[in-house]
Amino acid sequence: MNTTRNNDFTSIITGRRSIRKYDTSVKISKEEMTEILTEATLAPSSVNMQPWRFLIIESQEAKAKLATIAKFNQLQVETSAAMIAVFGDLNNFDYAEEIYGTAVERGLMPAEVKERQLTSLGAHFAKLPADVNRETVLIDAGLVSMQLMLAARAHGYDTNAIGGFEKDQIAELFDMDKERYIPVMLISIGKAVEEGYASVRLPVDTVAQWK
Amino acid sequence: MNTTRNNDFTSIITGRRSIRKYDTSVKISKEEMTEILTEATLAPSSVNMQPWRFLIIESQEAKAKLATIAKFNQLQVETSAAMIAVFGDLNNFDYAEEIYGTAVERGLMPAEVKERQLTSLGAHFAKLPADVNRETVLIDAGLVSMQLMLAARAHGYDTNAIGGFEKDQIAELFDMDKERYIPVMLISIGKAVEEGYASVRLPVDTVAQWK
Repeated sequence: MNTTRNNDFTSIITGRRSIRKYDTSVKISKEEMTEILTEATLAPSSVNMQPWRFLIIESQEAKAKLATIAKFNQLQVETSAAMIAVFGDLNNFDYAEEIYGTAVERGLMPAEVKERQLTSLGAHFAKLPADVNRETVLIDAGLVSMQLMLAARAHGYDTNAIGGFEKDQIAELFDMDKERYIPVMLISIGKAVEEGYASVRLPVDTVAQWK
Repeated sequence: MNTTRNNDFTSIITGRRSIRKYDTSVKISKEEMTEILTEATLAPSSVNMQPWRFLIIESQEAKAKLATIAKFNQLQVETSAAMIAVFGDLNNFDYAEEIYGTAVERGLMPAEVKERQLTSLGAHFAKLPADVNRETVLIDAGLVSMQLMLAARAHGYDTNAIGGFEKDQIAELFDMDKERYIPVMLISIGKAVEEGYASVRLPVDTVAQWK
């Protein structure tokens, strides 16, 4: 099943608005949310470690918990089809064997290349400073979050990226190891019932220089 | 002028590969690069501060400088139409007056809302811990980088997101204040002359949980 309803890239990026209020009667099936996440996670990441992790918060009970740490964003929590909590996994190298092993199984990588790369990556991660790992994970989580918001629009939904919540509390609230999983953002998703505001961007000449 | 050549969202995201080798005869005009950056910077950011900054490194001289700090990625530096260095601006609040003032000028925001928001944001940024500012900037820079790579594909180009370079040296090398501008990634861009490798993604059930 492919439920994509809008495939027009220009309209997807130019029509995206931060939407706070959603149609409460619209839910997103696990099947469709899985498609959206499958599209989102086609994003690239540092040495393909895919350090992003997601909680799809959609039950009344889980939303009520989230509401306690997202006080300025109650409207999104209450009306969205789901709130997606995006985390970065600091232990992302734990999945290296699975990722590279699958590449070999699928004939995408010779076994000897996998062994060589895993040895080299193992050495890299063993001496990777914690702050560099953390920053890489945040950047990669930013990449996937953008693609997630665009994939949502391709499926006919809108989103709001939210940084304003109690980041220090979210992992424990959902029984995750807070030393391992670092909070990145919340993304509300659902069917918009407002137009959202157009917002201003700085001119390209202000943010870019040619060399 | 609109030079967009591919508007098919599905093909843009599913066909994206990390490309290392480009057609050296293909350059990207400043006009078209400006369009790509205009599309990229439609990405959202925390309180719309747009903390992303870009160096478009395309001259032989600037590329030769960059090559000294990107030793494992010489092929991209040599063959790309340009290397885009993405930075985060830790002083992004300096642009608040310009961003919100323009919104008022364009009739997108009443003047009193602007004043109220700038007062509130001023108080927020004044007490924002440096590490929180830094992490927010990295996440926002991740968002814009993803949209940049997709916009590039809409214009018929391919990219490679590169984290492996001497991040501690890039600002000074290009005469930027390294205390203010933090390096995020390099993005090579150009016309691909190789297919690139398909790569494996972890199953959604491994990276997501429903609550």
